[in-house]
Amino acid sequence: MTVEFISVGTEILLGNIVNTNAAYLSEKCALLGLSCFHQSVVGDNEERMEDAIRLALSRSDIVILSGGLGPTKDDLTKEVTAKVFGRELYEDAHTKERIQEYFRRVHSNQVTANNWKQALVPEGAKVIDNHNGTAPGLILEENGKIAILLPGPPNEIKPMFERDIAPYLNRLQPEGIYSKMAKICSIGESKAETMIADLMDAQTNPTIAPYAKTGEVHLRVTAKAENEEVAERLIEPVMEELFRRFGDKIYTTEENVTLEEAIVHLLEEKKLTVTTAESCTGGLLAGRIMNVPGASGVYQEGYITYSNEAKEHLLHVKHETLKQYGAVSPQTAYEMAEGAAKAAGADAAVGVTGIAGPGGGTKEKPVGLVYVGCYVKGCVRVEEFHFTGNRDKNREYAVARALTLLREELLKYQG
Amino acid sequence: MTVEFISVGTEILLGNIVNTNAAYLSEKCALLGLSCFHQSVVGDNEERMEDAIRLALSRSDIVILSGGLGPTKDDLTKEVTAKVFGRELYEDAHTKERIQEYFRRVHSNQVTANNWKQALVPEGAKVIDNHNGTAPGLILEENGKIAILLPGPPNEIKPMFERDIAPYLNRLQPEGIYSKMAKICSIGESKAETMIADLMDAQTNPTIAPYAKTGEVHLRVTAKAENEEVAERLIEPVMEELFRRFGDKIYTTEENVTLEEAIVHLLEEKKLTVTTAESCTGGLLAGRIMNVPGASGVYQEGYITYSNEAKEHLLHVKHETLKQYGAVSPQTAYEMAEGAAKAAGADAAVGVTGIAGPGGGTKEKPVGLVYVGCYVKGCVRVEEFHFTGNRDKNREYAVARALTLLREELLKYQG
Repeated sequence: MTVEFISVGTEILLGNIVNTNAAYLSEKCALLGLSCFHQSVVGDNEERMEDAIRLALSRSDIVILSGGLGPTKDDLTKEVTAKVFGRELYEDAHTKERIQEYFRRVHSNQVTANNWKQALVPEGAKVIDNHNGTAPGLILEENGKIAILLPGPPNEIKPMFERDIAPYLNRLQPEGIYSKMAKICSIGESKAETMIADLMDAQTNPTIAPYAKTGEVHLRVTAKAENEEVAERLIEPVMEELFRRFGDKIYTTEENVTLEEAIVHLLEEKKLTVTTAESCTGGLLAGRIMNVPGASGVYQEGYITYSNEAKEHLLHVKHETLKQYGAVSPQTAYEMAEGAAKAAGADAAVGVTGIAGPGGGTKEKPVGLVYVGCYVKGCVRVEEFHFTGNRDKNREYAVARALTLLREELLKYQG
Repeated sequence: MTVEFISVGTEILLGNIVNTNAAYLSEKCALLGLSCFHQSVVGDNEERMEDAIRLALSRSDIVILSGGLGPTKDDLTKEVTAKVFGRELYEDAHTKERIQEYFRRVHSNQVTANNWKQALVPEGAKVIDNHNGTAPGLILEENGKIAILLPGPPNEIKPMFERDIAPYLNRLQPEGIYSKMAKICSIGESKAETMIADLMDAQTNPTIAPYAKTGEVHLRVTAKAENEEVAERLIEPVMEELFRRFGDKIYTTEENVTLEEAIVHLLEEKKLTVTTAESCTGGLLAGRIMNVPGASGVYQEGYITYSNEAKEHLLHVKHETLKQYGAVSPQTAYEMAEGAAKAAGADAAVGVTGIAGPGGGTKEKPVGLVYVGCYVKGCVRVEEFHFTGNRDKNREYAVARALTLLREELLKYQG
């Protein structure tokens, strides 16, 4: 089956916001095995929206519209779609009640008059409850064509898609699509692909698709099957094979678990605490660890040490070391990690020092040179990296590598 | 004149990348006074691409295609557009030489055979040099319709657009569009809009358009004029009026200057240094300051103090204070700022403590409660904030508010 997206919103046409909904829907629908050949954007204009919907319905089985379901007169998506399907709007009592309830819960005030517009739904439409906003989702079916209307705000469209739309789309197909993820660190994209080249060449069902992310590779194993149980039986041996090949380089098989989250869990499991000492990354590494709710259990304090003086007095990096080898050196990274652990009374520590650019590079120590030191319970390992991006990219990569190194060292520690 | 964008790429249809080029082009073309009513995405498929180009040319004056100019057989944008315009391709000697030169400079190796495909251009097309890649930009004009073909990688399309395409588009119109920015902090979006409501009601040329950004408001003043000099004479009195109304709440009039950059410049100007002590933001505030190249001149060290112990031993927050008022309190924020300045030997310091969520909230101290303390040369100011987002949003807003508060206090300091 084919799917097509129409994003509604003048703010997209004006470039005020990036169309992340289209990317989200594309990825999710691809995972459900739907083919997408077209995407488009239109503003809140009746005529152009009608043309766009008719064109989309003429060439695709399913048309998903996002946005334009708000309470104002400008919001036309529901009205125009109803017109194209030849349906009248009526006030849906259940939706009216839900909106009332939502206002009580979130705004603790009265519903404004124009919000009642959002309780109007086209005749014969499936109404999908919105648990994070007022506009309901709507599904219209006719002559084998389907229009799905979803709210525009990402925090509304995503939970609605996961909870109701994805299962609906999966039921439309004789075989559903189910997938599992293996997220890998400590290994580059091309090496990872080489290691599974034979599996990818031989694959029919399930299939393996690699995705690169800064410092990580995500392998998605996707099976077509009549139900989830059958799919799992197909996917399991492939996952086992991936574990045989990548071992503990697979840091999670959970869709929503990030590398920093896996590390926080590992620290919790091993009952270890961690700290960070950052020069060129200046707080970004700590910021990523602290992204994890509950990270405070394993991370009590950290240091940003830009100047040599800070490295000396906060981390007790030796004056001699800085003088002889410089701030960007394996020796300094070593002492930063060791000193940070000691200063924070932590079991583990990561020290990062490097030249993010654009200035500060020399022939011997060019922009992009970064040393990461990792201390775990008395053992220190230092790695040298050469990044080739701009300041932002170099810092982002340095953080990714630092996390990877920390994870490797934590895995080695047997308590 | 109307403009329309066609983004070419299967990776967009699959949701592997977000279509940031469309947002970029939308914003830039809106600033040039072009009206955009349609955007679309197609894959690397001859038939569908031809349909998309013909449809776009039928309804818009200018069609900008991005992507699909690469060296492989999959890349079809140039071939299909040439077909629609009824033009043959020929090898452009200048482009061939430029590609050769580019390979020598960047890859220090030989051009691969398929790169010569990129030297083929449609008859009669304007060829735009690509200074950051091999594929040239191309402009085709016929019967008052224009197709502009641009490379897909953001680091190629952006400099090409700024350097060659924007001036070309400006020349097409009897009057060009020129604009200037006033970036404002310390004042909310709705208040800022109220403060300029009369100006916005009365505006014809130039116009003022507000854009909200986390914790900031950006006002863009745009004039239509036959040349830049005339435009500047139109814009100047409006900018003066904005300065009369917003005063030093305007932190920059430069398009590319960020709030953190303005603050680093302010510190340099006043010959002051700064440090940070972060609890709930855990390094993100420091990370933003350190985004600025050369920030090391004003920032030597900083602290991440999640635990009470860290606040005590690194920042010398009093045990009594933590016990009596708690870690999330104005008193603690005060002592964090003061203590951080002292510990780092810095002239200024920002302390942030709060509850980012999702856990940790109580009835008295709910999720989203954040205190920011700001110390500048002996004076401390503490502000209380209530944010209503998720963990990420609350941390992002806390950082924005902390930067704003720091700037306000720095402005007050007269040395």
